[in-house]
Amino acid sequence: MRTTGETINRAEEVIARCRKLAGFSEDSSSTRRTFLSAPMHDCHTEITMWVEAVGAKVRIDAAGNLRGFYAGVESNAPRLLLGSHLDTVPNAGAYDGVLGVVLAVALLEALDGQRLPFGIEVVGFSEEEGVRFATPFIGSRALTGRLDEELLQRKDPRGISVRSAIEEFGLNPREIPLAVLGSDILGYLEFHIEQGPVLETLKQPLGVVDAIAGQSRLEFTFVGRANHAGTTPMHLRSDAIAGAAEWITAVEREAHKVPGLVATVGAIEARPGVTNVIAGEARLTLDIRHGLDEVRNRALENLVREAEEIAKRRGLSVSPKVLLSQQAVAMDPFLIHEIEQAIRKAGCEPHRMVSGAGHDAMILAEKVPAAMIFLRTPGGISHDPAESVAVEDVAKAIECGLHLLDQLSSSPTFHKRMCRA
Amino acid sequence: MRTTGETINRAEEVIARCRKLAGFSEDSSSTRRTFLSAPMHDCHTEITMWVEAVGAKVRIDAAGNLRGFYAGVESNAPRLLLGSHLDTVPNAGAYDGVLGVVLAVALLEALDGQRLPFGIEVVGFSEEEGVRFATPFIGSRALTGRLDEELLQRKDPRGISVRSAIEEFGLNPREIPLAVLGSDILGYLEFHIEQGPVLETLKQPLGVVDAIAGQSRLEFTFVGRANHAGTTPMHLRSDAIAGAAEWITAVEREAHKVPGLVATVGAIEARPGVTNVIAGEARLTLDIRHGLDEVRNRALENLVREAEEIAKRRGLSVSPKVLLSQQAVAMDPFLIHEIEQAIRKAGCEPHRMVSGAGHDAMILAEKVPAAMIFLRTPGGISHDPAESVAVEDVAKAIECGLHLLDQLSSSPTFHKRMCRA
Repeated sequence: MRTTGETINRAEEVIARCRKLAGFSEDSSSTRRTFLSAPMHDCHTEITMWVEAVGAKVRIDAAGNLRGFYAGVESNAPRLLLGSHLDTVPNAGAYDGVLGVVLAVALLEALDGQRLPFGIEVVGFSEEEGVRFATPFIGSRALTGRLDEELLQRKDPRGISVRSAIEEFGLNPREIPLAVLGSDILGYLEFHIEQGPVLETLKQPLGVVDAIAGQSRLEFTFVGRANHAGTTPMHLRSDAIAGAAEWITAVEREAHKVPGLVATVGAIEARPGVTNVIAGEARLTLDIRHGLDEVRNRALENLVREAEEIAKRRGLSVSPKVLLSQQAVAMDPFLIHEIEQAIRKAGCEPHRMVSGAGHDAMILAEKVPAAMIFLRTPGGISHDPAESVAVEDVAKAIECGLHLLDQLSSSPTFHKRMCRA
Repeated sequence: MRTTGETINRAEEVIARCRKLAGFSEDSSSTRRTFLSAPMHDCHTEITMWVEAVGAKVRIDAAGNLRGFYAGVESNAPRLLLGSHLDTVPNAGAYDGVLGVVLAVALLEALDGQRLPFGIEVVGFSEEEGVRFATPFIGSRALTGRLDEELLQRKDPRGISVRSAIEEFGLNPREIPLAVLGSDILGYLEFHIEQGPVLETLKQPLGVVDAIAGQSRLEFTFVGRANHAGTTPMHLRSDAIAGAAEWITAVEREAHKVPGLVATVGAIEARPGVTNVIAGEARLTLDIRHGLDEVRNRALENLVREAEEIAKRRGLSVSPKVLLSQQAVAMDPFLIHEIEQAIRKAGCEPHRMVSGAGHDAMILAEKVPAAMIFLRTPGGISHDPAESVAVEDVAKAIECGLHLLDQLSSSPTFHKRMCRA
């Protein structure tokens, strides 16, 4: 299927809008737009203008999320959420998060005033990256009723609490309950750049996410005996770095063995850490992810056992410490199926994939059927000013989105969901 | 052969003296006696008292070395140097260096006034550890004429030059040439704790050093591509830590394969060094030593080649940078042979070994026949307040030293050396 010139124009406009929003930044020479920062106001103003132009109503909820409601044929019809996040990391690119919101707006525009059997709520989440409060997903947590007192009291590096930040932004923390999703939500759909190299390698513009990977993060400390590098023969050593190195190769081997598993040692530190002293201690991290918790847990057990075996054989001790353990989150099978069809209608081959990174869809999925569509990311580069997206791929995303809205409008299954909502 | 009660008493006195000297410290609660520090004066005063009591003359040369001359039968007979260093690391033990000087004094005392065909010069080197000026062997370099202008201008962390430090200690830098060894030196003999676990493992009190290992120190930097730990599949990674880890296991394997080789990765650092990011860079050190330069160089070539192969296979680059390259120094074969005999006469099995650490004997060997005798070091522990030595082992060292002086006094080879000197 050939993409129409109109859709290409729309895609170009989407990219131009993302680039414009990248200019709303806390830093003068790069993009940084954290939770409830001043440039977020400008970002909201700009998007509100676009959304209101299609006849939708916009409010900023008490957690700072932009919520634009485009009613259905009947004004009280249940709604489909469409969106992503508006905050960024420091030195960010223009598309991570933002693209999903701007694409949602573009889909409303493409409807050209047509009303669907369901309403569409465009959501621009206020916080996903976790930069300001070292806690991600504050925006989407507000929608699922998880922006609680404990979270409100967390402070940023300047000592400002989430609660105070909300007030400083001109919002009322007491209205947080009004941000929580009602019972009339049909689902949540998020377009997002892949932030990885898979679709590029497969030469596919779009992918459908069937699960957000569960992940475990641990710290492993190998302890041996620090000793003189010149006077201690090889067979009398308890070298913590050598033990750690053997284990790192085991981590890599395990990950290559298990399809879909990713396992990473990203940080390593040795003590005393001196050229001519055998290391008495090596501390390293493990990040391990998979779409199925069972698979991840089994691999992790293998790696802990292997660390213990290596340590024992080498006269070392090893102690693993769990830093994070997060379950995998499945996306909604019905939506996945519909997305696959829509991608095919757009003339592409839908690649099913697990998202190795967390997303707002993971939080929303606790309450509503959720799904994600990934856009190919050139070079897999993200969280970097070099982050980009091809205009043709954005056009395919728009086509896919329109096919999907069309399918859902006439789907008996979705109709049943609407009746229940 | 049973050690006599008299020798045991002498050994106990040696240990008591080492412990007393450990009290002369820059720090109140631990031993730290660096080059030309105030407590070195007290140390000199104490040793001078002991040395003068046996009828030897003491001077402090312009480099701060203590030089006590015990004349031979004929007052102008050539001399054998006997000693070690008097400076310490911070938080030091009581025996590293000091023991060799105190043992030399004990040997003079055991001669009980007897004069030998050669003179004995006790040397207490002022600087071996390299703590104050980050440059080791300043004391022994003065004896070999290598305390040059460049070295005199080096500064300690407080900005004091070696030259000024010499003046502040009450010495005259212009007299440095007078510290240089004359042509009448028969050899240099150094007792030193092993500072390693080999003799303890072999259950032997004494070892004879046949070479000071040559050593190379390098820094290897593996460079790959930093990437998201969740979104980058295993087969699309260029993980610098994983490459470095594979190479560390290769380093260990090579060292186990080559007898006498020690190879150590003591420091490792990754960037960005974050749990959820694949490392784009890993920087690590290699310390590699062997008694034969050829063996060390061949092993190093293998390891560099292996690093390059690993890097190539993994899509990484690797660049090795040489930080230090120091040749092996052979000890004098005649003295080694005589020491072996003396150790046997003391009732022990002489273990020939390579010293993995540098010592003053390495510097002296440039100019005079040099040899070293190692004393078993409990737990291999050194550079630590827990550093110790067994009284029985010190007694064996005294016996060995006396046998050696006796052998040299009647050795035709040594006699020839005396005639040439």
